[in-house]
Amino acid sequence: MVPIAIKIDPADNVAIIANDGGLQAGTEVLGSVVLKDFIPQGHKVTLLDIEAGEGVVRYGEVIGQAIESLSAGSWLHDRHIRIPEAPALEDLPLATREAKNRPALEGYTFEGYRNADGSVGTRNVLGIMTSVQCVTGVADHVVRKVKSELLQKYPNVDDVIAITHSYGCGVAIQAPNAAIPIRTLMNLAKNPNLGGEVLVVGLGCEKLQPGRLVPKGSDVEANVVCLQDIHEDGFEGMIARIMEMVETRLARLDKRSRETCPVSDLVIGVQCGGSDAFSGITANPVVGFATDMIVRSGGTVLFSEVTEVRDAVHLLTPRAVNVEVAKTLLEEMSWYDNYLEEGNSDRTANPTPGNKLGGLSNIVEKALGSIIKSGTSPISDVLGHGEQVKKKGLVFAATPASDFVCGTQQLASGIALQVFTTGRGTPYGLAMAPVVKVSSRTALSKRWFDLIDLDAGRIATGEADIETVGEELFRMILDIASGRIQTAADKLGLANDLVVFNPAPIT
Amino acid sequence: MVPIAIKIDPADNVAIIANDGGLQAGTEVLGSVVLKDFIPQGHKVTLLDIEAGEGVVRYGEVIGQAIESLSAGSWLHDRHIRIPEAPALEDLPLATREAKNRPALEGYTFEGYRNADGSVGTRNVLGIMTSVQCVTGVADHVVRKVKSELLQKYPNVDDVIAITHSYGCGVAIQAPNAAIPIRTLMNLAKNPNLGGEVLVVGLGCEKLQPGRLVPKGSDVEANVVCLQDIHEDGFEGMIARIMEMVETRLARLDKRSRETCPVSDLVIGVQCGGSDAFSGITANPVVGFATDMIVRSGGTVLFSEVTEVRDAVHLLTPRAVNVEVAKTLLEEMSWYDNYLEEGNSDRTANPTPGNKLGGLSNIVEKALGSIIKSGTSPISDVLGHGEQVKKKGLVFAATPASDFVCGTQQLASGIALQVFTTGRGTPYGLAMAPVVKVSSRTALSKRWFDLIDLDAGRIATGEADIETVGEELFRMILDIASGRIQTAADKLGLANDLVVFNPAPIT
Repeated sequence: MVPIAIKIDPADNVAIIANDGGLQAGTEVLGSVVLKDFIPQGHKVTLLDIEAGEGVVRYGEVIGQAIESLSAGSWLHDRHIRIPEAPALEDLPLATREAKNRPALEGYTFEGYRNADGSVGTRNVLGIMTSVQCVTGVADHVVRKVKSELLQKYPNVDDVIAITHSYGCGVAIQAPNAAIPIRTLMNLAKNPNLGGEVLVVGLGCEKLQPGRLVPKGSDVEANVVCLQDIHEDGFEGMIARIMEMVETRLARLDKRSRETCPVSDLVIGVQCGGSDAFSGITANPVVGFATDMIVRSGGTVLFSEVTEVRDAVHLLTPRAVNVEVAKTLLEEMSWYDNYLEEGNSDRTANPTPGNKLGGLSNIVEKALGSIIKSGTSPISDVLGHGEQVKKKGLVFAATPASDFVCGTQQLASGIALQVFTTGRGTPYGLAMAPVVKVSSRTALSKRWFDLIDLDAGRIATGEADIETVGEELFRMILDIASGRIQTAADKLGLANDLVVFNPAPIT
Repeated sequence: MVPIAIKIDPADNVAIIANDGGLQAGTEVLGSVVLKDFIPQGHKVTLLDIEAGEGVVRYGEVIGQAIESLSAGSWLHDRHIRIPEAPALEDLPLATREAKNRPALEGYTFEGYRNADGSVGTRNVLGIMTSVQCVTGVADHVVRKVKSELLQKYPNVDDVIAITHSYGCGVAIQAPNAAIPIRTLMNLAKNPNLGGEVLVVGLGCEKLQPGRLVPKGSDVEANVVCLQDIHEDGFEGMIARIMEMVETRLARLDKRSRETCPVSDLVIGVQCGGSDAFSGITANPVVGFATDMIVRSGGTVLFSEVTEVRDAVHLLTPRAVNVEVAKTLLEEMSWYDNYLEEGNSDRTANPTPGNKLGGLSNIVEKALGSIIKSGTSPISDVLGHGEQVKKKGLVFAATPASDFVCGTQQLASGIALQVFTTGRGTPYGLAMAPVVKVSSRTALSKRWFDLIDLDAGRIATGEADIETVGEELFRMILDIASGRIQTAADKLGLANDLVVFNPAPIT
């Protein structure tokens, strides 16, 4: 076993121990540094003597100040490092970096389902939208019934899903922040994988009146069933009415077929969860490379997670396509700063215990690794929480960093597929769109061989490079988008619940 | 059809039209009042001339001031009435009402499952608790597998359920208000219907470390499976480990049997949802009567819903068993006032469109009807959000009024059964405990004959009185608690998701 420590930027005074199981004291790394302590995998070794108060540098950025002096070869633990202030949101460089004119990529395509509104799905799914949690039991009943009695009659339909959530009633629907959950739900109903079909099950007395979830231009009467308006045959009457609407829609969806679409029709989301110190070295750079390939092909990639971007926002504002986009990005940061402060919290609420075990000292280090998913393209637009995508290219979609909330909001924004990187491992999946899971470490992808789609850990050991694995991911995305291969989560039928972000009060 | 208008208190200057379909202009009600307008069912008729600015009185309480003058026989619509200030929380009478020494009820029993901690369940259910949303797909997979392969081998086990939720990670777990979701989850794991068995499925890297959900005194190692700690056989390895733990617990649960327990061992919750103007005349008084019978038998009834108690709190503080309990009640009101204000909202966020259609003009009228569920017993204790019940008798458990959040929190507080009144109708149900649904109107219980358990609407038409239907409900509660009869929601397999109240920020 060759001892491996990874230094990313020439300015770094720490490196990451890459070997599975860590390295013992006395081991020499990077040709000159001898470890003074045992250092676990993913954790940091000091490459130089660092004085108390001196900056600890990773990714070429200061991730904190040393609390005590440490000589070269020491295990730099998160207790040794003080978190710096977050970058001030004033006086940042806005849209200053010339977009690199890398040549457009031509000729890449996928087989998608083209919708009437111009969007393209990677799946052909019937969604049964609910306006309120109260009707969840009925929607779940219908889904079970359709799956056991009906779906096999429509072989071109991939799935039927209930779009259930905790919003809809018992909420302060006029509160300013209620706009977020409402637009998230309105836009979830329009996800490209749902084929433009609408079926809303409502109760009738709820705050969020079900007609609001029917997209503009669609007939409310024809697409909504309110349980309180069913006057015949009790429960069976409700089910009969919904099944009738389901069958009409299944018949229409079944007539659809995939067609060859340019990558410019593809909208995907990228996210990380259960990150570790390798996420920023292996999995996220691989995603960044694939992101660049999609953007160069004219496609659209959403990156997100405000609290995991906040501490690296000074590296993003220069990449905005214009000053207005950069300012909108800063407004989203500022909104979240205030939101956390009003809840008597701050950015140090992130990272998690698992992130720390995985070697991430604080949110600064996590954020620097996180934004690498965005690649190097210019940021063409910024979306508020739950807003629908409007522009092509690389788009920042503001979401919480919580995996399942980010996933829900990216679906609302219109992604047809998601790429998810993980260091610690998660069985995360979405019912509405395929999720490609990329592991940051080979040990994880070996152990969870049937839960991980792609191993980026090979990069840490030098077995592969970012370009090779990045292009592998790009081709995998197109294969999955085309229905040629299934993701691990889809093979196993694993899906998380939708979790809608509601920063307004409940009543 | 005899025209019926219901006046509740001698001081009332409005009455409620009871007839299905409403009453036409020209109809005479209460012997002297001739309707000037068509008035829909549940809506208010003025019994006297009311001047602009004069108080509109229902339940003997001012529910608002008339905005314009209305002559007797007019339809008093919610646009005619201005909401008064909420009762100030200072200077209220505290614990001033002598508890009526009504004789204790002896001899009522039910057949329950007695647990080691002294609590008694009405069901024998295996709960698979999750520490974080990330593992939901795995927990759901296990439940499907157990139901199809295993459950039939254990005929004494009623059900296996996944206790899934949106909390656990991506949250500001150190924020002061995070105490609420954390204790809600800790206490959900201890619900009496789960037989004292613990099985927590965690991921490993999450903020809410899974060991925290194992009740004190139980072995953490033996009761928790962390997916990130499974090193063999990938997904199948995880499932095998969980199934092994499931089987041990099913074998133990299967050995249990019901035993005769006094009603003093019973803990139930009462709640209303989709209320209308009849809720306070029919269904809620029926529940109040049954509540009194349970309390007089030494049992425990939780009533809840802060925003639907707030405007009638002056009628509750005198009933507190002592000044300390009254003050705790006021603290819960004050906490919620602040919570709404911080979210730029207030108490007028309730009621809902359906409540208004059903004749409820504002939250004052709704609250006056809502608290009737609490009957007339002294209030023996007040619980904070998600706290476990500590005392017997009538207990106020602070919860949001949202049906599914209130249900979740009452389960955490330890109810083994819930009674739910509804005017507009809802298919609401809980997987963890039976829910008895009582309708406020006969029309609803006829239309939804297989979704409603008991029709309290007979009271509005004079076909039955509160005492008769109240005792009928009491006996039904004991039958359902004993497993002798099933609720409508259980027969149909309808259950809502658990929705945990998290007033702290997410990250």
